[in-house]
Amino acid sequence: MGLSEFALIDRFFRDCGARRTDVSLGIGDDAAVLEPPPGKQIVAAIDTLVEGVHFPLHSPPASVGHRALAVNLSDLAAMGAEPAWALLALTLREVNESWLAEFSRGLDTLAREHHVALVGGDTTSGPLTVSIQVLGFVEPSRALKRSGANAGDLVFVTGSPGDSAGGLAVELGSLHAATQPARTYLRERFLFPTARVALGRRLLDFASACIDVSDGLLGDAGKLAHASRCRVELEYSKLPISAALLDAYGEQRARELSLSGGEDFELCFTVPPSRIVDMERALPAERWGYSRVGVIKQGTDAVVVDNGTVMDFSHSGYDHFSTVR
Amino acid sequence: MGLSEFALIDRFFRDCGARRTDVSLGIGDDAAVLEPPPGKQIVAAIDTLVEGVHFPLHSPPASVGHRALAVNLSDLAAMGAEPAWALLALTLREVNESWLAEFSRGLDTLAREHHVALVGGDTTSGPLTVSIQVLGFVEPSRALKRSGANAGDLVFVTGSPGDSAGGLAVELGSLHAATQPARTYLRERFLFPTARVALGRRLLDFASACIDVSDGLLGDAGKLAHASRCRVELEYSKLPISAALLDAYGEQRARELSLSGGEDFELCFTVPPSRIVDMERALPAERWGYSRVGVIKQGTDAVVVDNGTVMDFSHSGYDHFSTVR
Repeated sequence: MGLSEFALIDRFFRDCGARRTDVSLGIGDDAAVLEPPPGKQIVAAIDTLVEGVHFPLHSPPASVGHRALAVNLSDLAAMGAEPAWALLALTLREVNESWLAEFSRGLDTLAREHHVALVGGDTTSGPLTVSIQVLGFVEPSRALKRSGANAGDLVFVTGSPGDSAGGLAVELGSLHAATQPARTYLRERFLFPTARVALGRRLLDFASACIDVSDGLLGDAGKLAHASRCRVELEYSKLPISAALLDAYGEQRARELSLSGGEDFELCFTVPPSRIVDMERALPAERWGYSRVGVIKQGTDAVVVDNGTVMDFSHSGYDHFSTVR
Repeated sequence: MGLSEFALIDRFFRDCGARRTDVSLGIGDDAAVLEPPPGKQIVAAIDTLVEGVHFPLHSPPASVGHRALAVNLSDLAAMGAEPAWALLALTLREVNESWLAEFSRGLDTLAREHHVALVGGDTTSGPLTVSIQVLGFVEPSRALKRSGANAGDLVFVTGSPGDSAGGLAVELGSLHAATQPARTYLRERFLFPTARVALGRRLLDFASACIDVSDGLLGDAGKLAHASRCRVELEYSKLPISAALLDAYGEQRARELSLSGGEDFELCFTVPPSRIVDMERALPAERWGYSRVGVIKQGTDAVVVDNGTVMDFSHSGYDHFSTVR
C-alpha cells in the first residue's frame, strides 16, 4: 500500500467512535495519550478476526467492524469493566473504499453505543485480519474473574447460545430447513452480536465469577470450572434455546448447538445463593435477558446433566447417554 | 486449532516478559487488569507484522518476536513514554512448537530488557500475523508529539537509517556485493532493531517534536513537517551512514537508503536552539547514538538539501538534482 492509500484509510477512522474528553491525543501520532480516571484499574483485552476463519469470505463489512469490536467489548463485559478506548490493527489485501466505509460504519455505530473512542491504529497490507484492543476501567479489586465460583453458586447465561452458530450456517448457505423469520433472526445474531456490557457492570454487585461465551457454552463453562477448581453442572432441560434455533434445528440439535456453538459473546456467570434474591430484584431476568442454567458443585470440569444423569459430549455432538454418576 | 493447541500456545506466553507488581491479573482470564500509576497518562500503540509483508517467509522466529514488540516500543519511545504492558494477537497457520519457542524467546528477551510484562493475548488460526499492543506511561501533558517543531529547531536522528533496508536485502539474498562483516551487521539491524526507549524518555526534557522512523527518514520527516506545519530540511552530507551500508552500496545508494529505507525504528526529533547545549551535555551524542541531520524552516514538506540545493526525490530513488530553489 502506498502512503496515499494509508491516508485514505485514515480518513475512515479519524472520527470513528465516541468523542471522549479523556483522550489527550488520538489517531495521528505515534501513539495515543489517554487520561485514566483516578482510582480505577485498567482492563485490557485484544481479539482478532481473520477472514475465512472467524467470518466467511465476503461478509458484510459492517458486520466485520461490529464483530471485531463486540468480541472485545464482551471480554470487558465479562470482567465487569466499563469500556473507554479502542485501537485497531487492520490488515487489508486491497484498499476498497466502499468496504472501508461500511466496515468503519459498523465499528463506529457500536463504538458510539458504548461510548468508546477509537484512539489509534495501524493499517497494513496482507490477508484480511482485524485485531482490536479495548481498554476500560474497573473499580479496584472488583473485576469479575473466572476463578471466583464456589460450590453451591448458581450458574446463569445471557441470551440464547447457539444462535450465532445457526446464523453462521445461514451465512454459509447450509441452513435451508428454517423459516425465513428464523433465518433472518439467526443471521442477525451472528452478524451483529450483543456485547453485554451494561449487565457485566451490574454483575459486579452479585456475581462470584464470569466468563465470556465465545468458544461454546460447555467449553467456556469448563474454563470457569478449571479456574475456580470446581464443577459446573449445566442442566440440559434449562438451556435457553431461541424459538428460531428450535425452528431451524429441532430440539436435540438446537440444544447441542447451545452447548457447542461458538462466537455467541454471551456471559456465563455464577452467583452465590445468598445474592440471588437481591440480584433478581435489581436485575429482573426477563429484562436483562439471562437464565439460570446450572449449579456449581465440588469436583472438576463442566458437564451437562439431564434428570440427574451426566450426558456424554464429544465435539461431534452427543454420542450417547452415559451413567458415569 | 483445537483447544489443546491453544493450551500449548498458552504455555509459551504465560511467563513471557517481565514480572510487574502493577499487573493485578495477567494472561488467563477474559482480559488483563492493570494498575496505572497515579498522576500519569497512559500511552497506547498497536502495530502489526504480516509474514511476506513486514518480514520474509521463514524469518528467524526470534526476530519476528523481537520486531513485533520493538516496533511498538519504538512508537512509545517516540512519545517519550515508559513502556509497561503488552498484549499479543498471534495468528498462526499451524502450531509449530519449535517456532513458538523461538518466537516467544525473542519477545521475552526484549520485553524483559524494557521491563515490559505480557499481560494478555489472543491466538487464532490464519496467515501468520502478529499484532502487539503496548501500553506505557508518561508525565501529564509531556508526551512528545509530531506537532511541536518550530522554525529554527535543529533536526536529529538516532542510529544510521537505511541499515534495516540493507539487512532485508541480505535476508532476501539480494545483496552480494558487501563483505561478510557488513552483511552480518546489516542483517542484525534488520532482524533485531533497537527501540530507543531510554533516549525517548530523556528527550522529554529537550525535544520539541519526535517521530518514529519506520517508513523511511524522508517520509517520516515529512509527517513531522506536516503535523508541525513547517519544513524539514535534511542535509544530504550529514545523513549518518554506517560503514557497513557504505561498504555494501557505495555512497550514493547508501544515502538514498538512509532516506527511503523503512523499518529502522530510529527516532527523528527536533530541538530548539536554546536547548541544544544542555542536551548535548546531558546526552552526549556519541554515547546516545544520534546525529544532527537538518533544520526546521518555515514552509511545508521535508526536503533534502546539498550545498544549498534541494534534491529531487522519487520513490525510485534520486532521479536527478534539481534547482527548484
